[in-house]
Parts: sequence; C-alpha cells; structure tokens
Amino acid sequence: MNLKIGRMPHGERNSIGDVPGVRVGHCTIDNERHKTGVTVVMPCEDDIFKRKMVAAQHVLNGFGKTAGLMQIAELGTLETPIALTNTLNVGKVHDAMVEYMCRQAEQRGYAITSVNPVICECNDASLNDIRERAVEQSHVFAAIESASPSFAEGDVGAGKGMTCHDLKGGIGSSSRLMEVDGEVFHLGVLVQTNHGSLSDLRIDGQMVGQEIERRIHEDTPDQGSCIMILATDLPLTARQLTRVIRRCSVGLARLGSYIGHGSGEVMIGFSTANRIPENAGCFQLRCIHESQINKAFRAAAEATEEAVLRSMYFANPVTGYSGKVRRSLKEFWQP
Amino acid sequence: MNLKIGRMPHGERNSIGDVPGVRVGHCTIDNERHKTGVTVVMPCEDDIFKRKMVAAQHVLNGFGKTAGLMQIAELGTLETPIALTNTLNVGKVHDAMVEYMCRQAEQRGYAITSVNPVICECNDASLNDIRERAVEQSHVFAAIESASPSFAEGDVGAGKGMTCHDLKGGIGSSSRLMEVDGEVFHLGVLVQTNHGSLSDLRIDGQMVGQEIERRIHEDTPDQGSCIMILATDLPLTARQLTRVIRRCSVGLARLGSYIGHGSGEVMIGFSTANRIPENAGCFQLRCIHESQINKAFRAAAEATEEAVLRSMYFANPVTGYSGKVRRSLKEFWQP
Amino acid sequence: MNLKIGRMPHGERNSIGDVPGVRVGHCTIDNERHKTGVTVVMPCEDDIFKRKMVAAQHVLNGFGKTAGLMQIAELGTLETPIALTNTLNVGKVHDAMVEYMCRQAEQRGYAITSVNPVICECNDASLNDIRERAVEQSHVFAAIESASPSFAEGDVGAGKGMTCHDLKGGIGSSSRLMEVDGEVFHLGVLVQTNHGSLSDLRIDGQMVGQEIERRIHEDTPDQGSCIMILATDLPLTARQLTRVIRRCSVGLARLGSYIGHGSGEVMIGFSTANRIPENAGCFQLRCIHESQINKAFRAAAEATEEAVLRSMYFANPVTGYSGKVRRSLKEFWQP
Amino acid sequence: MNLKIGRMPHGERNSIGDVPGVRVGHCTIDNERHKTGVTVVMPCEDDIFKRKMVAAQHVLNGFGKTAGLMQIAELGTLETPIALTNTLNVGKVHDAMVEYMCRQAEQRGYAITSVNPVICECNDASLNDIRERAVEQSHVFAAIESASPSFAEGDVGAGKGMTCHDLKGGIGSSSRLMEVDGEVFHLGVLVQTNHGSLSDLRIDGQMVGQEIERRIHEDTPDQGSCIMILATDLPLTARQLTRVIRRCSVGLARLGSYIGHGSGEVMIGFSTANRIPENAGCFQLRCIHESQINKAFRAAAEATEEAVLRSMYFANPVTGYSGKVRRSLKEFWQP
Repeated sequence: MNLKIGRMPHGERNSIGDVPGVRVGHCTIDNERHKTGVTVVMPCEDDIFKRKMVAAQHVLNGFGKTAGLMQIAELGTLETPIALTNTLNVGKVHDAMVEYMCRQAEQRGYAITSVNPVICECNDASLNDIRERAVEQSHVFAAIESASPSFAEGDVGAGKGMTCHDLKGGIGSSSRLMEVDGEVFHLGVLVQTNHGSLSDLRIDGQMVGQEIERRIHEDTPDQGSCIMILATDLPLTARQLTRVIRRCSVGLARLGSYIGHGSGEVMIGFSTANRIPENAGCFQLRCIHESQINKAFRAAAEATEEAVLRSMYFANPVTGYSGKVRRSLKEFWQP
Repeated sequence: MNLKIGRMPHGERNSIGDVPGVRVGHCTIDNERHKTGVTVVMPCEDDIFKRKMVAAQHVLNGFGKTAGLMQIAELGTLETPIALTNTLNVGKVHDAMVEYMCRQAEQRGYAITSVNPVICECNDASLNDIRERAVEQSHVFAAIESASPSFAEGDVGAGKGMTCHDLKGGIGSSSRLMEVDGEVFHLGVLVQTNHGSLSDLRIDGQMVGQEIERRIHEDTPDQGSCIMILATDLPLTARQLTRVIRRCSVGLARLGSYIGHGSGEVMIGFSTANRIPENAGCFQLRCIHESQINKAFRAAAEATEEAVLRSMYFANPVTGYSGKVRRSLKEFWQP
Repeated sequence: MNLKIGRMPHGERNSIGDVPGVRVGHCTIDNERHKTGVTVVMPCEDDIFKRKMVAAQHVLNGFGKTAGLMQIAELGTLETPIALTNTLNVGKVHDAMVEYMCRQAEQRGYAITSVNPVICECNDASLNDIRERAVEQSHVFAAIESASPSFAEGDVGAGKGMTCHDLKGGIGSSSRLMEVDGEVFHLGVLVQTNHGSLSDLRIDGQMVGQEIERRIHEDTPDQGSCIMILATDLPLTARQLTRVIRRCSVGLARLGSYIGHGSGEVMIGFSTANRIPENAGCFQLRCIHESQINKAFRAAAEATEEAVLRSMYFANPVTGYSGKVRRSLKEFWQP
Repeated sequence: MNLKIGRMPHGERNSIGDVPGVRVGHCTIDNERHKTGVTVVMPCEDDIFKRKMVAAQHVLNGFGKTAGLMQIAELGTLETPIALTNTLNVGKVHDAMVEYMCRQAEQRGYAITSVNPVICECNDASLNDIRERAVEQSHVFAAIESASPSFAEGDVGAGKGMTCHDLKGGIGSSSRLMEVDGEVFHLGVLVQTNHGSLSDLRIDGQMVGQEIERRIHEDTPDQGSCIMILATDLPLTARQLTRVIRRCSVGLARLGSYIGHGSGEVMIGFSTANRIPENAGCFQLRCIHESQINKAFRAAAEATEEAVLRSMYFANPVTGYSGKVRRSLKEFWQP
C-alpha cells in the first residue's frame, strides 16, 4: 500500500512481526454458513508462561466480551498468546487456549492449574452465522501452528467476517522504528477492525467515505469494535505501556471514527524487553525514561492508523451467509 | 448458625434469595477425580436480556479469570445470569451460557448475536483434577434448572472444591434489611470462598484460627480468591452500586483476610429495582439519595462477613482426588 | 470562523453558552510580567451547592494539577463553578473559590464547612512569569462577576498565556444540537488549549502546520495540556456522561495531536438536566437510553475539534514577558 | 502503647520515621477559634524534585478534596513533600507548597515552572472554625522546618481538630519490618484519622466502642475521612505500590469502620528505593518479585490498623471553638 502515514519509519515487514520474536497465525473458516476464524499473536518463541512479559490493557469503549484483561491490569503481565475471534466464540477459544497451555506445560515437564488466556473478539454476525460458534479447538491449534513473523492481512483469520466503515474490514498491521540512546526499537500494532461508518471515513485528510457512499449507499452508525494489539521491544513498565497503548485511539480518530457506542474498543500491549523471572527476591526491570516516551506515543498513533487502513486495503470483498456483500476499499480507492 | 454478625436485621432466608426474584442453583460434581461444580445466580424470573438490570463491578484484587466485567463497567448493566465455577472451566461455562441465552431468546421469538456472559471462578486444584475441566454444558443447564430462592450452602456447586482459611470453604450467603423512606429493601450477598490462611482467621473478634492451627498444623499464605455477588432491590445507579459493593471487602478483613496476592477478589452487584427498557428516547431511573447510602454500605459489609462465615460453617469436610483432606470449621468451632 | 467541522448543527452562539443557564466569565491579566488570567464556567444561575448537578471527569493524560476530580469521580456531582487558570496558581484560585462559595452560602442563609472547588490549569510559563502567581482572589471574583452566555474567545482569561500547536492558543468554544424523541438538546464544549506541535497541525485534512512551519520555524514536541469542559442539557447519568466526555479526545486527534507526554489532558462534564435534591429518600433521575448516546458522542467530538480551532483562530499574537512571540493562526490561515 | 497488632515486628520508632530518610513535621494551631494545623511528610533529605520517587495513589472513598493525585496516577512519581491539613485550607497550603518548592529550587540553582504539590485533608469543622482557613504559609514552612524521624502523634498538626470513632482522632503512625532475600526492609504508615462511629469501634476483637458509648452517649454515622500515607524502602514499581496501599483498608475495617459515605479515604504511597534520574534514555528500576509481595500487604494492613489506634491513643481530649468536647480513648481504654 503506497501511502505514507505519519512521519516515522516503519520496520522491514511494516507489521507487528517486526518486533523480534513476535509471530502471528491465522485459521480462516470460509464456507457457506461461516465467514469467521481465529488469529493468534504469539509473543515469543520460548515459554511465555514461565517467563512472563510486561503487559498492559486499556479499555476505550467497554462494550465487548474480551476475556483476560482483569489479570493484566492487576499483575501487569502476559502469560499466554493472545487470540482474536468472533463474539460468541470467546468461550470455546478460551477453552482451547487452556488446553494448549496445559499441553505446552506438560511437554516442558510441569503442570498448569491456573492460567489467564487473553481472548479478544469482534462481532461478525452480519456475514457469519455466529450462533453456531464455528471456531473449534482444532482451528485455534492450526492458527498457532501457522504463526510466523510474516502473515497475511485483510479478510483472514478473525478478520474474515469483519466490517469496517461499512466496507470489508479484517486484520491489519503496521510498525514503527524509534531510537533511544542510539539503540533502535520496534513497535508494532495488529488490529481487528469492525467499526466506523462509511460517511465518516477519511484517509489522509480526504473525505473518501462520502464519495464511496454516493456509489454504494451504505451508512450505518459507528458501531465501534476494534481490537488493537501492540507489541514492542522498548523496555517499558506496565504503567508506561498503559500510557502508550492509550494513544492507539488517535489512529482511529484520524480515519474518522468517533468511538461509537456499539461495541468494544480494547487495547492490549506487551513489551518483549523484560521477561519476569519465575522466582526471585528482588530483580532489575529495564525501562525508558519518561522524557523519551513521546516517541512511543507517536509510533502507537501512526502504526494504529496505518494498521486499520491496511486491514481494509488488503481485504477482499466478501459475501456473507445471508447474501450480504461487503465491498473492499481497494475497489474504490487507491493510495 | 447461631451467631449475630453486625447490627442490621437479616431477611427471612438470610440469603441472597431474600431479594425478590433472585434465585440460586447448583450442580455439584463429586466423583473420584472431581470435586467441583457450577453455581448460578439468576437475577430475575423474566427476560434479563431484554430488560437488563443496573449492575456494577469492582476488582479488589485482579489475580483471576472472571469474564464479563468489562461490559458491566462500561454499560452498567447485567444481561445474563451469573455463573461461578473453577478457574480452568471458565471457557466451557462461558460457551454454555451463550448457548443458554441463544435458546432462551429463540424460545421468546428473537435471535441473539451478541451477549455478555458473566463467569466467575476460584481455583479448586488442591481438591479437584482441574485440568480436566469437568464442568460441561449439561451441568450448567442443570444448575439453572434447579435455581430457587432457597438453596444449599457450603461444599456445593462451585463451592465443592473450595478452601477458605485452610478449612473447607464453599458457597455462603446472607442478607440484610434496610428501610428508606418507610419502604423496606433487601440486600443479599453470595460468596464463593477460597481465600485466607488459617492462623489469620478470627471470628467475632476471637483468634479462632490460631487455636485450630495448633490442632491441624495447616497454614498457607493468604492466597486470595473470593467471589462476591451482591443483589438488592434498593434503587441504585451503577455508580452508587459500585460504591456499595466496594464495602464487601470490609467483611473479608473482619474475618482475618488481608487480601493476599494469590488470586482474584471480585465483586459484582446488581439492582432489581430498575429494569432498562429495550428501547426508549429518555426514561426515568429511580435511585436513592446519597445521604441514605450508608445503610447499604453497612449491609454489604455485614452480609459479606456473615456469608463467608456461613460458606465455611455449612461446608462438610472433603477429601480431594489426591488424598488431601479439607476439614470443616464446624468440627472445631461452634457459634 | 467560516469552516464547517463535522455534520451536526451548532447552537445560536456556537459556544458552551448555548446550554441554557451556562455562562462564562474571564479576567485577563496583561502587563509587562504577566500574560495570564482566570476563566470561570458558571453551570447555573441558581444555587449549585444546594442543587448539585450530575457530573463526570475523565483523565486522558494525567500530567497536570487539576484539583477537584476525585470527588466528581466518586459522587458524580458538581457543586461549584469550574475555574481555569495557570499551573502554579491553582492554590490561590482554589482558596478564592472556597471564599466565594462561603460568601454565597452566607448570603443564602447557610454555612459551608466543606466544598469541592474544581480548578483546572495549563502552563503559561513561556509567556507569563508564572512563579509570581499573579491571579488573586479579586481576579477570580471579577471573572465570576462578568460571566455571560456570550463571551470572548482566544487570548483572554486563562487563555492569555496559552500556546497551541506552537501558535497562540487560548479559550475556545463550540456547540452542537441534537434531537432525542422530538426534543432538542444542546451540548457545548469550552477548551483551554496549550498542546500540540506545529508540524502536526492539520485542519480539515490539510497539513496546515507544516506549511506554517516553513515560514516561522517553530516545532516543539507535543506537550499536551488541554482542558475540556463539556456542558449539556441532555439528561445523563454520571456513567453516561463519562462515556460522552471521553469522545472529546477525537477532536484533539483530528487536529493533529497525539496526546503528548508533557501535561494534563482532562475532561470534565456536567449535565444541567437533573438537579440533585438536597435531601430525599429515593428520587427519579432522568436519563437517555444508551441507544441514543451516539448523538452525544458525535457532538462531543465535533464540538471539541471546533472549539480547539476557535481557541487558535480568535487568539491575537502575544509577546511574552521574556520577549517570546506567539503568532496567531489567523496570520497564516483563513477558513 | 502496649498492644501487639498483628504478627510482624515493628521498627525502632514504630513509625513512618523508621523508613530511612523519611521525616515528619507538625505545626499546630491551637487558639480560641482554631484547633487545626498542618503536618508534612518529607520523603527524603535531598532534592525530591530532581530525583523523584516511585509513588502511587488509591482512592477508597473519593468524597474529599485531596489535590495532586492525578499526576501520581499518571506518572507514578512523587516530586514534593506531602502536606495534610483541614478541608478548606487545601488552596492556601497548596500555594505555600508551590512557594516552598520554588524557593528550594532557586537555592539549588534552578527554576521551577511546574510542580505537583500533594495536599491531603480531613474536615475539622466540629472543633475548628474552618471557614477562616487559619493555616498560613508560615505554618507550612514551620512544619517543614521541624520535620524529624521522631515526631509527636495524636492531637498535633493536622490532627489537632480530628475526630475518630467519635473520640479524639489525629495523627498516628506505625511501622513493620520485613525480610526479602536476607535484606531487611521498612514499611511505615502515617494516618490522619477523622472517620468511624463510636459504637462500631472494636479493638483487638473487643467491642470497646459500645462500652464507651454507654458512658458518653455519642454515636454519629461513619463519616469516613482517613488519610493514609505509606512509605517504604522496599523496591516497588508504581503498579506494585498501588497494590500495597490498597491493603491499608484492611486496618480500617479491623477497627470497625465500614468506609462510610461521608468523606475521603485516600491512600498515597511512595518508595525510597528507586530515585528516578532527571534525564536518561533507558535505566534500571529495582523491584521485588510479585511472589514476595504478601509481606508488604500484611505490613500495610497491620501498620495501618496500629497507626489508627495510636492516633486515638496518643490524642488528648480537645474542646472545640464552639464548646464541643472530644474525649480521648485513653480515658476509657488501656491496652
């Protein structure tokens, strides 16, 4: 996609996969009744449960069913992969993640009796027969299996049934690079986009949505629902990370959302820079000085704006189980 | 249990079932490998989804996996029954509640494509083979089926595998009556207790736990985890209800807990006094004047203290799948 | 200012003064050493202390010294006018507001022994000798005295020393009208703007700031600090109002801010629709149905965007005590 | 006071002064019209502004006027001493602290243009003619001047006009020692107590208040208002510190408070273990492992319980300006 958003440079893949160790996997369910799936963000290659990462969460609009936020808020750590799926599938995917974590532990020679899976969701009921809860354990495992630093965007995985600004939404990602004390750090955002109304859509300052609306006559209220996962190798405390992820909302606003009532807008962030030791008395946590944090704020805003745009740009048109068609942004607009 | 806690009168059943319309059901799983189950709090006899209730949540210690809090915090409403179970079973029970809500809606002639189940948990791994996630959809449905204003306390339902102050914990409940402007209101609390250390246990000011400890030599750190569900027919806004449920912590502290690190202490409250209309422009919400709210604060503190005590007093000793025995408070102490 | 922001109609004055009963007063201090002042938002003509209003607060970036938020968060009410001033003057203005409230009460025949003044601030140290704390009680009283539904914008009152996107900032305001159930409601925002960097400034999608920067070579980091006061006659609970004011951030983002680290971005909202009775048992609170709330969300976003722009557009260039000159947007840009 | 609260050992002074570097100063105003004053907690001997400390705040009941919490919540740091005074004096004491900080900076060769004073308060209007706001800048400076690790408790400084459980309240303090990895750490709490009703007062499990009430016939509702300042040399992040100070509420509950509606219960904590460098790229922050944090939780609960009791036990009876007499606990009870 040939459009410069913001002023900071992006990483090699221009995705959350630029953050060393972070991988993303999809499993897409695309049949007559189901346009849905699951996407997983794998925070590291090694054992996240034994070597937890600093993490944070921020709820911009809590009309949603994301599970696992309470413990992140309290302990400031992530101990599982993050899964994204559809609204009514949270329970099944939750259970699948418990199973995955139990098996992983067993393979590594220990037993888990408590674990906090993080399961995010947006509602794909306009394209997907959501009540059937089509995402099974096998799909979750397949998504995990396929995880890679390079991954598809658009109408894939949990993005299959998404609608964004009345066009096809889905999974998008983008990254930014920043320098602190001569060291280069990566910050990547992955979004699941299911929010916004067409007439509000603006791209790079142009009221693109209103032009498209004149052609396809769609315009529903801003129904919200955008999941934003931010990863970085910048060393941050949980408090600092909370501040950083809060800036993701700037990216949404720039594209025209006013954060509608309808559903959940949830940010989750993790930093790969510090791994919490399994046991210790006291230990050292590396973090940036607050005077440097504006770099990460700007990066979060820019990467989110670009990730949302990419989720739309890379999505193909999809016809839902009830015949509803979601058109693609790229049919109407080219950067 | 013949011990007066506090100064306010309790209701007829001295349980959350005193709040008109509120019922509780259990399904207990008690076999060689499993000491676990599910407990449901049914907020009303009619359609909670179409006529939501004002609700609130407060997280005292967020080391836990309770699902559904985010939406309660944002919208201030409850739209499903509340289920309590074991830690690793949250996903399966979540999915069962989605199924239940979909079927209920279908029977009533409409279709649900989004719903926010509220699933709470404590960890029963010391008595129950928790990794097997023994609670199935059928157990959830059986618990709902059995719901009644009168219900058992102690080692039943989600309480089967609980440990409280190193003795047998479980499900407990208590209620208080209060008068505002000549009208009598009910406030009830139901708890799932899995927290505290033995040597800290104090009852009515006596260091009962230390005496018992000399006999059974158990004393583990305060591991937290107590779920507190508060129901009332007092008219309250979500903000007021948040203030009320926060006072449940007083009851825990009085019995000796210092709110340990180990797991989740979560309060959820709902008021049956206002039902949110399905559609409206503007409408009237009845609420109490803040000058009256101390009555509800005291009631929340007293009912929680008594409910926790009852959860222990009514529990029988239980031998876990690994041979671990949890003794009952009533073996050692009588009010 | 001849530029349409958003799609909703504005009120007669296009200011917070469109909300019936709301008035604004300024007292500007403009001498060799001081470019500062105080601005007051008067929520009603009658006794706010005895008949409190539903209110809410939201902290987007808590690097600031605003006083009075804690009680608004807990009780959901406003009981004094809201004053805006410079950072180091919060104490003196706080004390002046206590004095004002005590005198008002005395005139009305009662005595106050506790009151929660709400004092907001931005830092004007680049133009004003801030350590001298030039704003005295007499200035606060003069601002209150002068309050009117029609009031000046730009470099007046607390806006005298403000810098926004490296140009002259100050006080700005805007309003929107919305209809619920056939009734027309008003929502107005007043801002004190002291945030943003020049090169980020965008107006109506145009990167205006970068053009100006080529001419005046200013570009500092986004230092934050924008106070946003929202008033409405829409009936809202404190929870709903919190949701509404959170959308003010959309307006900031649209103009190019990414909510920098540097200072406080604070939203305070109040609704004139319900007045809390001084004493009662239970009472009725009118509120809108959540399904209508998107109107207020959009209004908050649009009015904030326009208010910030007006704060800049109506500001004259100001030369600070140290010789620093802040240029005005209107020297470079015309709508 | 010869009564053991809890099970952990206390420090040498059994006060917040046991935390190395922490000092407390009082200035008491005791004349016909005024029974009030100011108490300051000095976090260190050197420059707190340039070398800030990790800090946290928690609002248990936000009916109060404490200033400075917002920035602590956002940045997790303390940059001034903490002052305690009466409710209507917050503005004047705030201004005095700004003056103090400006002068300190000047003496050290730099200029301050922004600073976040932390001013806490309880309401002493029943004994003190509060509307006159008797605490002047000179009193604040005198309190700072007198600061020492050893300091008086009871009816001194900001404690002069306090009422706790209907008896004389005031300033109290207590400390606890804990060991992590062989190193001994200190945790101290200082309280300003103005909460509770007599009949609820229980000490070490005895309903002492009800006995006293039979003799002096006082019993007002629990009006809340207790300021709790916690200092420790344990290395903690702001998130961890927030968890620790939240446990102070356990101490209040143990003595019979149910956290009444009436006024503010506010906890502020700081750790002397890490000083934030003035400038840096990245740096190391030492913190304890969460598995050790229960020690600090128990210490916070115990020290708060004992500090509140000491605030009452060391207070002398005081006759207010209107003739109202507050009796002392020690007239009725001896440990």
